[in-house]
Amino acid sequence: MNAQDRVDAQDRVDAQDRGSAESWLRLGLIPGLGPASLRRLLQHFGSPADVLAAASAAVERLLEPSAAAAFRQGAAAAAVETALIWLEQPGHSLLTLADADYPKLLLETPDPPVLLYVCGHVKLLGHAALAIVGTRSPTPRGAADAQAFARVLSDAGLTIVSGLALGIDAAGHRGGLDGASSSIAVVGTGLDRVYPARHRDLAHELAERGALVSEFALGTPPIPPNFPRRNRILSGLARGCLVVEAALRSGSLITARQALEQGRDVFAVPGSIHSPLSKGCHWLIKQGAKLVESAQDVLEELRLPAPAGMRATAAQSAPLGELAVLLEALGYDPVDLDTLCLRAGLTPDAASAMLLTLELDGYLDRLPGGRYQRRR
Amino acid sequence: MNAQDRVDAQDRVDAQDRGSAESWLRLGLIPGLGPASLRRLLQHFGSPADVLAAASAAVERLLEPSAAAAFRQGAAAAAVETALIWLEQPGHSLLTLADADYPKLLLETPDPPVLLYVCGHVKLLGHAALAIVGTRSPTPRGAADAQAFARVLSDAGLTIVSGLALGIDAAGHRGGLDGASSSIAVVGTGLDRVYPARHRDLAHELAERGALVSEFALGTPPIPPNFPRRNRILSGLARGCLVVEAALRSGSLITARQALEQGRDVFAVPGSIHSPLSKGCHWLIKQGAKLVESAQDVLEELRLPAPAGMRATAAQSAPLGELAVLLEALGYDPVDLDTLCLRAGLTPDAASAMLLTLELDGYLDRLPGGRYQRRR
Repeated sequence: MNAQDRVDAQDRVDAQDRGSAESWLRLGLIPGLGPASLRRLLQHFGSPADVLAAASAAVERLLEPSAAAAFRQGAAAAAVETALIWLEQPGHSLLTLADADYPKLLLETPDPPVLLYVCGHVKLLGHAALAIVGTRSPTPRGAADAQAFARVLSDAGLTIVSGLALGIDAAGHRGGLDGASSSIAVVGTGLDRVYPARHRDLAHELAERGALVSEFALGTPPIPPNFPRRNRILSGLARGCLVVEAALRSGSLITARQALEQGRDVFAVPGSIHSPLSKGCHWLIKQGAKLVESAQDVLEELRLPAPAGMRATAAQSAPLGELAVLLEALGYDPVDLDTLCLRAGLTPDAASAMLLTLELDGYLDRLPGGRYQRRR
Repeated sequence: MNAQDRVDAQDRVDAQDRGSAESWLRLGLIPGLGPASLRRLLQHFGSPADVLAAASAAVERLLEPSAAAAFRQGAAAAAVETALIWLEQPGHSLLTLADADYPKLLLETPDPPVLLYVCGHVKLLGHAALAIVGTRSPTPRGAADAQAFARVLSDAGLTIVSGLALGIDAAGHRGGLDGASSSIAVVGTGLDRVYPARHRDLAHELAERGALVSEFALGTPPIPPNFPRRNRILSGLARGCLVVEAALRSGSLITARQALEQGRDVFAVPGSIHSPLSKGCHWLIKQGAKLVESAQDVLEELRLPAPAGMRATAAQSAPLGELAVLLEALGYDPVDLDTLCLRAGLTPDAASAMLLTLELDGYLDRLPGGRYQRRR
């Protein structure tokens, strides 16, 4: 293929892409036609072009009356044109349910959006990710913790997903951007808007080095019902959700709940029982979320290796003296306390205390039935 | 029965008690004969008097060589006499495995002591109890929390058991004494000694209004191996064990571990991830201990009613407006989200947020399969 052929082919692909994007937008931009109705139509007819080419009566039969009325009305031509112009700008893309790049974890959730507007590095959406959420008014310590967790987890290979809100969200994004795996903001407005406005620089940085994602049409203002709805994408993109400082009855708990419903791991950072901003985290831990004290805890739960620097820090010095004797006596098969005491020449009380120390240092596991097994 | 007969009968009972106590002490005070060996002998021969009357060879056959040698040696007559004199003083008593007053919960543990020396209100040992343990060097906040938890739980009917150590132990005892159900100290020395010495006043108060308990002979000094051993009695007397501030590798974790092995509930108070004194509590929560933020949490887990004053504080005001409508729509049978939205005329997002609020306030339970059920 010579250069001219390549350019022609690229033009044909672009024209085709534009045509395909236009069909998706003409469906996706119909006000009042939700993702569930859209997915039903696509399942029945095939592509958006097929849906649009089908007899109106055949389509409307598959819809609730209000959705059918919305379908008859159709998308505003101006909205479709605005989106197509937006798409032509560098770094802007549209991901549809049919795209190979559509994030697999999100696809497996109960209510995946049909269209995702993306600004920035679209491939990042397929990367292993962790959501970090929390209060918009954190303590300085909480914000620093969120950023530190995010930085280490980003370096460990997890892209940090959050919602571009003030407080913990922003700290999570900044930590993610500081690390090796960057950060994704899932926003509750159209991507041509930045909310809150004071996060303009952060949004710009995410567009440059990470990604911003929205299911809402360009121009969508920040309206309250869209934010909890957005949370399902936030948790849907991630393997787990870490909550750092959250009050009771806060949006972060809704995100965490959605993460649980999507089968994700939920992690929560504990704090003082006198801090209102720890009550949400404590509530989650009581409900079964995992208490985490460090990024290492999160990585262990997700069975991911720690980054090299962290491994070195986490490595324990070898146990000394009596502990080494006990460890030697333990061997690598499960052993009960009596046998161990005989082998090591220790009283049960002394052995119990030493076993606890070794367990705390990660040298052994306690098995059901009071037996112990060496881990390393 | 006339007055003189009553006095005579009392004397006979006292003489008989003294004789029985003497047999128990002559067995229990044999150095090097542990509770397991003693229980084996009692099981075989019946009473201590029967053991002592049996042929020496028959007894020694049942013992390991070292225990058999100890048995041949016997208890020092002076030690037995000292204990008998101690027992004659008001408020001093001896509980044996055969006593009806021997605490039932302790009896069910794997290694119940054969003899318990008690100073103070012996009946208190049969009372529902909670162990409170933690670091000897708490933060002021931690000590205040321990005392406040203990006070409320004592008022709620739980006698507070702890180890008379500095720090959290002392705070637990003081809170227990302040409340309605008093406190018990399980000590690692003989009851004629107070360790640490600066707790002389606290020990005196416990003897007056609570109890002090030890399995160790009078005169036993504070030696390290006796303290972990003492912990099994501490947790064995209680229905659960609450840990307030504990470092990793601390004695409190050994007590909590023993409580778990005895099938008790273990509760831990969380704190900052940057506080070394919260690391032990966090470790326990990761191992399955219950995170508690209040005495109310402990009572709920133990299915005990809160004291009247606390119930009033904890009672929620009735939900208002839309929440009341949703609660009304919910009824008292399990309902799924779609049905609920139809009934209440709400979107799923709005209903989800409101359901979370109602769940947090204890108005409903979330059932498996995404259904909800009203609780009150």
